[in-house]
Amino acid sequence: MTFRAVIIGGDAAGMSAATRIRGARPDTEVIVLERTRFTSYSACGIPFVVGGRVAGGVEALVARSPDEHRRRGIDVRTNHEAMAIDVAAGEVEVVDQHAGTVLRLGYDELMIATGGAPVRPDLPGIDLPLVHGVQNLADAQKLLSLAEDGCRRIVIVGGGYIGLEMAEAYVERGCEATVIEKAAQPLAVVDADFGARVAGAMRSHGIDVRCGTSVEGFEPAAVLTDDGRVDADLVILGIGVRPRSELAVAAGIAVGVKDAVRVDERQATSAAHVWAAGDCAETTNLVTGEPGHIALGTYANRHGRVAGVNMAGGDARSPGVLGTAITKLCALEVGLTGLRLEPARAAGLDAFATTIDTTTVAGYLPHATTMTIRMVAERGSGRVLGAQIIGGPGSAKRIDTVATAITAGMTVADVTDLDLAYAPPFSSVWDPVAVVAREAIKGA
Amino acid sequence: MTFRAVIIGGDAAGMSAATRIRGARPDTEVIVLERTRFTSYSACGIPFVVGGRVAGGVEALVARSPDEHRRRGIDVRTNHEAMAIDVAAGEVEVVDQHAGTVLRLGYDELMIATGGAPVRPDLPGIDLPLVHGVQNLADAQKLLSLAEDGCRRIVIVGGGYIGLEMAEAYVERGCEATVIEKAAQPLAVVDADFGARVAGAMRSHGIDVRCGTSVEGFEPAAVLTDDGRVDADLVILGIGVRPRSELAVAAGIAVGVKDAVRVDERQATSAAHVWAAGDCAETTNLVTGEPGHIALGTYANRHGRVAGVNMAGGDARSPGVLGTAITKLCALEVGLTGLRLEPARAAGLDAFATTIDTTTVAGYLPHATTMTIRMVAERGSGRVLGAQIIGGPGSAKRIDTVATAITAGMTVADVTDLDLAYAPPFSSVWDPVAVVAREAIKGA
Repeated sequence: MTFRAVIIGGDAAGMSAATRIRGARPDTEVIVLERTRFTSYSACGIPFVVGGRVAGGVEALVARSPDEHRRRGIDVRTNHEAMAIDVAAGEVEVVDQHAGTVLRLGYDELMIATGGAPVRPDLPGIDLPLVHGVQNLADAQKLLSLAEDGCRRIVIVGGGYIGLEMAEAYVERGCEATVIEKAAQPLAVVDADFGARVAGAMRSHGIDVRCGTSVEGFEPAAVLTDDGRVDADLVILGIGVRPRSELAVAAGIAVGVKDAVRVDERQATSAAHVWAAGDCAETTNLVTGEPGHIALGTYANRHGRVAGVNMAGGDARSPGVLGTAITKLCALEVGLTGLRLEPARAAGLDAFATTIDTTTVAGYLPHATTMTIRMVAERGSGRVLGAQIIGGPGSAKRIDTVATAITAGMTVADVTDLDLAYAPPFSSVWDPVAVVAREAIKGA
Repeated sequence: MTFRAVIIGGDAAGMSAATRIRGARPDTEVIVLERTRFTSYSACGIPFVVGGRVAGGVEALVARSPDEHRRRGIDVRTNHEAMAIDVAAGEVEVVDQHAGTVLRLGYDELMIATGGAPVRPDLPGIDLPLVHGVQNLADAQKLLSLAEDGCRRIVIVGGGYIGLEMAEAYVERGCEATVIEKAAQPLAVVDADFGARVAGAMRSHGIDVRCGTSVEGFEPAAVLTDDGRVDADLVILGIGVRPRSELAVAAGIAVGVKDAVRVDERQATSAAHVWAAGDCAETTNLVTGEPGHIALGTYANRHGRVAGVNMAGGDARSPGVLGTAITKLCALEVGLTGLRLEPARAAGLDAFATTIDTTTVAGYLPHATTMTIRMVAERGSGRVLGAQIIGGPGSAKRIDTVATAITAGMTVADVTDLDLAYAPPFSSVWDPVAVVAREAIKGA
């Protein structure tokens, strides 16, 4: 019998694993079960497609198609949905959606890479046809054709990344976009004052951002809130992603935070020969060592790769995550990494935050815009724990310097001493990351 | 007697030191001798002023004027030029250029922050009035008024940062700019293929870049080269900066590389109670520990600060430098840090280089442009030694991630594992810095 690896899910995590196994073990049969017709796509690119900025539309987001994977020796079965895992028998039950047949597929190694699904609140009318999630390319295609068919009034429920990016995309198309956010500010991954700046930038861009407002239900052409009715041709759910871990739960595989599949640093689950990675799996925080659930494409790719190495008999380990993320919303860039003040304190760390306001480039240049950096560090040790950056063009990718410093265990004094690049079109002479660190020394 | 600190030179290094001493020791008299009428200015901003992009002109480059420093209790004496240092007597001989008087000023601690001067090749006609250096704000003012008076044909001798930035600035003003470079490519701080791309970008911008051409002399309205005569209304020297260390040499203070003042990690010179920092002083390479001379405003600021702490009785040390630098030339950004391949090998390291071509943002976005990253690492250990980046908008500041990684002693495998920020407007899903590191693992 040929050694067989079966992978459930053909996006970032699954295909990264499949590619690694294929490369390492030419003798292994690699089967990928994918319920849509797409593989290896950039879900993060969906707002740009819907905004009409991507020539080639939805297909342009596909990094590698099923046929390309097949030519590389991976047996990709699209429109195949895994229905159950039998860990005792080492089998997966699969439905071929086209043929309508069910088969049982034995595996030697199995990977669960089922991804995430938009959180769907249990509200009246949630199943009405105007309510959509944004998760995969099938969603994207539907949203694009609705936009082209003349949907004009778009309501986004929830002010997370995807919701805000979608709001901007629709406004770029000439639609009206309203964001309904329960909290006092959108973008809960950053501090409230940063979120308030995001809300301001979006409003200046013509987006109706309504904070402190709760959605109470949906009608065929409206969203009902505690602050009245909002007309809508289309509703987008942007209140987060939950792990699609039902298969794992049903198979008795351990789950943790938000029911994400529990994995160790090798991406192994609680069941022998079963691995998981991507939006369906837990992540481990690099600073605190605590488990979490952070659905980011970067982790799907890298943790999928680690799973693949191990499924092929190698030994790879996933480093912890910092939740480093970045987004561009209208005129603002936002970047974050590591711990914010409250989570750091909640994790038992004696943390403090330092904030500076500066400019994106030398202040005397005409295109200088404002930038704010907040750094969180540990009192006593001075160890850097996290940072957030918000500002104009060129602001947010600086977060990588902080992510690298945290990974290296650097203190605020170490960061002050870094030899960072300076020229007037890029920075003030003391790089802003070094400036906030220097300011933080006083609090350390 | 009041304790007295005397600082020769009122730009970045000198005023950083003065400010630190003033802050730490309210009882100390702090005297700064500055031969021009300017203090604390951004020399790096001169090309932008000459290019007409800075509202407020030359004065806008002044971060803090002499009067502002005086209000903070620093005795700044502009138009005062130090002529000699008597280390045995602890005195400086100074000319007050306005009064025409000479005085001797005693010091308890002395700092040499005399900066650099453009290298002036010993060629016929070098002293003709059309030949100018670009070093301080007096130069900038002269160049700006010449540009406004109708200088049209500008010849830049040497294709370093400043020369290339000035060429671009003049073309932005509508002048004709010719760069004469002896080497096969401009921008000797990067590898030749990177330099070739810079030359190409500058030519596309209408700048006449002539490589492999030597200047043989100057006439009142022309530059003579081994490839013929080039008409010129104005000549700019851009062939490097030499340390202005004559005062130190005459005083018997030790100098090293290119006659830069030799300093230890506390910025102390060979003479007791005499310190130095900035373009007049040596730097120490963080990777090799070797002395060098890298004239960058970032070092002037941070090493000046270290000198100031020590002059005030504290104990600060300068970390080694990586030569991290960045520039924007026409449509291209260039960044570099650490060692290139040849210098690394010359330093006895078993180094290898890895290069990747990628895009600045997700490839499917319409504004994606090309970016190339070359990483140098040590075989065996896998330690990262240096990197160069060239590409479109958003390319070059990524060099900070590498600078941080080198400082932390990271290997290429460590860099591959970094949690760097991804979103389509900023990056491919695997950050390019991680991609080049991953590729480098194969060579490590």
